[in-house]
Amino acid sequence: MIEFTHQIPTKIIFGPDKLGQLGTELAAFGKKVLVVYGGGSIKRNGIFDKAVESMQEAGLTWFEQGGVEPNPKVTSVQAGADLCKKEGIDVILAIGGGSVIDCAKGIAAAAFYDGDAWDLPTHKAPIGRCLPIVSILTLAATGSEMDPVGVISNKDTEQKLVISNPALRPAVSFLDPTLTYSVSAFQTASGSADIMSHIMEDYFVDGDGSMYMLDRIKEGMMKTVIHYAPIAIADPTNYEARANLMWTSSWAINGFTGALCNCEWTNHMIEHELSAIYDITHGLGLAIVTPRWMRYVLDDTTAPKMKEFAVNVFGVDASLPDKEAALKGIECLEDFFFNKLGLKSTLTEIGIGEENLEVMAKKACNGKETLNGWRVLTPAQIVEILKACL
Amino acid sequence: MIEFTHQIPTKIIFGPDKLGQLGTELAAFGKKVLVVYGGGSIKRNGIFDKAVESMQEAGLTWFEQGGVEPNPKVTSVQAGADLCKKEGIDVILAIGGGSVIDCAKGIAAAAFYDGDAWDLPTHKAPIGRCLPIVSILTLAATGSEMDPVGVISNKDTEQKLVISNPALRPAVSFLDPTLTYSVSAFQTASGSADIMSHIMEDYFVDGDGSMYMLDRIKEGMMKTVIHYAPIAIADPTNYEARANLMWTSSWAINGFTGALCNCEWTNHMIEHELSAIYDITHGLGLAIVTPRWMRYVLDDTTAPKMKEFAVNVFGVDASLPDKEAALKGIECLEDFFFNKLGLKSTLTEIGIGEENLEVMAKKACNGKETLNGWRVLTPAQIVEILKACL
Repeated sequence: MIEFTHQIPTKIIFGPDKLGQLGTELAAFGKKVLVVYGGGSIKRNGIFDKAVESMQEAGLTWFEQGGVEPNPKVTSVQAGADLCKKEGIDVILAIGGGSVIDCAKGIAAAAFYDGDAWDLPTHKAPIGRCLPIVSILTLAATGSEMDPVGVISNKDTEQKLVISNPALRPAVSFLDPTLTYSVSAFQTASGSADIMSHIMEDYFVDGDGSMYMLDRIKEGMMKTVIHYAPIAIADPTNYEARANLMWTSSWAINGFTGALCNCEWTNHMIEHELSAIYDITHGLGLAIVTPRWMRYVLDDTTAPKMKEFAVNVFGVDASLPDKEAALKGIECLEDFFFNKLGLKSTLTEIGIGEENLEVMAKKACNGKETLNGWRVLTPAQIVEILKACL
Repeated sequence: MIEFTHQIPTKIIFGPDKLGQLGTELAAFGKKVLVVYGGGSIKRNGIFDKAVESMQEAGLTWFEQGGVEPNPKVTSVQAGADLCKKEGIDVILAIGGGSVIDCAKGIAAAAFYDGDAWDLPTHKAPIGRCLPIVSILTLAATGSEMDPVGVISNKDTEQKLVISNPALRPAVSFLDPTLTYSVSAFQTASGSADIMSHIMEDYFVDGDGSMYMLDRIKEGMMKTVIHYAPIAIADPTNYEARANLMWTSSWAINGFTGALCNCEWTNHMIEHELSAIYDITHGLGLAIVTPRWMRYVLDDTTAPKMKEFAVNVFGVDASLPDKEAALKGIECLEDFFFNKLGLKSTLTEIGIGEENLEVMAKKACNGKETLNGWRVLTPAQIVEILKACL
């Protein structure tokens, strides 16, 4: 039986050159803005200046928290939250990709919390009041611009944990596909693998099979990624490709298609441990892990759904037996990730060896005996999947 | 170039037996509720009692406006608005299908307007402040439960006009598929034709062809209607079918997939004139008109998109020439509407003759020289389409 509550109030302003509206949108929440950003490219490419101009026109005051890392660290969250408390910030403006927006979510949640910011992802304290977030997206990947979730890393504990609260869904997000023209081929490929994985983690679930509509929509979104990611890599200023990837990134994980998901996201849980220790790009890790996971859990019970994926997403011959079609689907996915997107196909190639497989497999279970995804996996089984990735 | 603003804040509570939450949801908007409903079946089937129980628990006061007609009349809107003013209503609870929710939208908009309620659909006065709306949906068809639009009829002027305002999107909608178990085969068929038409009106547009993602999603939604409508007709208490049709009805017209639509909805404009004069069921009128419109506008410029529809929605052979594939797609659609759904296929069969074709064709242009849909149509051309429907 499918029961859910759906509410996605985020206002999306989609299209080029919309930052003139930024000041007005921010001013709805107050006068003092904390601008959160990453390595500073936004100061070189003019986005920051446009944001400042619009904030000035609206009579706003702003403070800055730059230098947010990929896989954002709790130290950045804490520093941002301290600044919010000190300056009485009213609203956070995140300019960047998923890491920056995730960091902004951590800050938004920690700004009204008196303890250590790490207490929130570790559930030592509940998330209470949060600051509102406005985002300007510069990378199509994580979907953080429209979802209620952030991922925060802690180098000390080598952990990568999730914070989630409806109040962390950005209030307003500016989606300008032209801002992703400068995204490198590698980051475009990794982002696209991330989008695919978000859809797949919700697609491969044991529901009662009864949300046909959402499965068809997910297939449409996967076809979109498969169609446009290679175009965006070959032709980085192709608006059509960038626009489709950007809007798909938001819908892949905003909760609409995930209404049925009643289990943990296996590949994300495993990959989070890889990037927690090795700080690799999330989408790259997902691309390496996902096909191995599919091969590992392929059996008579999973083959029908994997065949559906193969037939409806990759056009594999529907008359083939389930397992054969499923294997062809996995091959198509590998071809997409490793040939069409040009991502490295093994952990070995990116400098990861056997040294931490057991540790990562155990941590991926997140304190439980098993990782409870589409198919329940023990740490020993996760090690086997990771070995297949070497 | 695709530019749009997207915001759908409606909270959807989806699943059986959720009305225990109704009082709490209503109480967020105030103490005094106007319950709007139709012919009174909700008093016989227990829905009204459940709503009352939940409102009583939340300490709310309610007033009633029953008897809302299919194709709701401005007289009902005016009566409801007068009641709102007299009693100081805080929130409207609409229990019913699209007609009841549309009427509630009219009341919500007219409740703070001092003139004649008909001034709002005729644009003699702008829509200002509106009362919030909570809905309990009992029919999957119009999508009014999640969209900002209502259609109001005026028997005196034989007009059927639209009111539209972001404030008219219901704040909360309860979607319980089991409430549609009692919907008749005819109403299920008509509702399903309405859902199909909403998707098709947005699908057959001249964009720059660049929102591939939305086209794939629309195809997924059309496949869902085609798959489940016959099941719901044959097996009215099939939860899976009712749930998929209900959730698809909301997404077919809530604005998400319509971001690209830059033209008038041809079939809706024509059908509105049919039901304005003859008071026929909206979806039935759409089913009769749509395939004739497709045949009429089929030419070398429209054939490629119609072929895409035929191939991706109905599985027509992709190797066929464009026009041949397009015609096969239209035949599949006719087979769906008139055989699978069992709807009457001509105006003659439902008692409509040639007497008003010119009047309706002129009115469908809504005060302009032409009806500016996917292909611009003159009144004379609309008459030809209507004649093909006889």
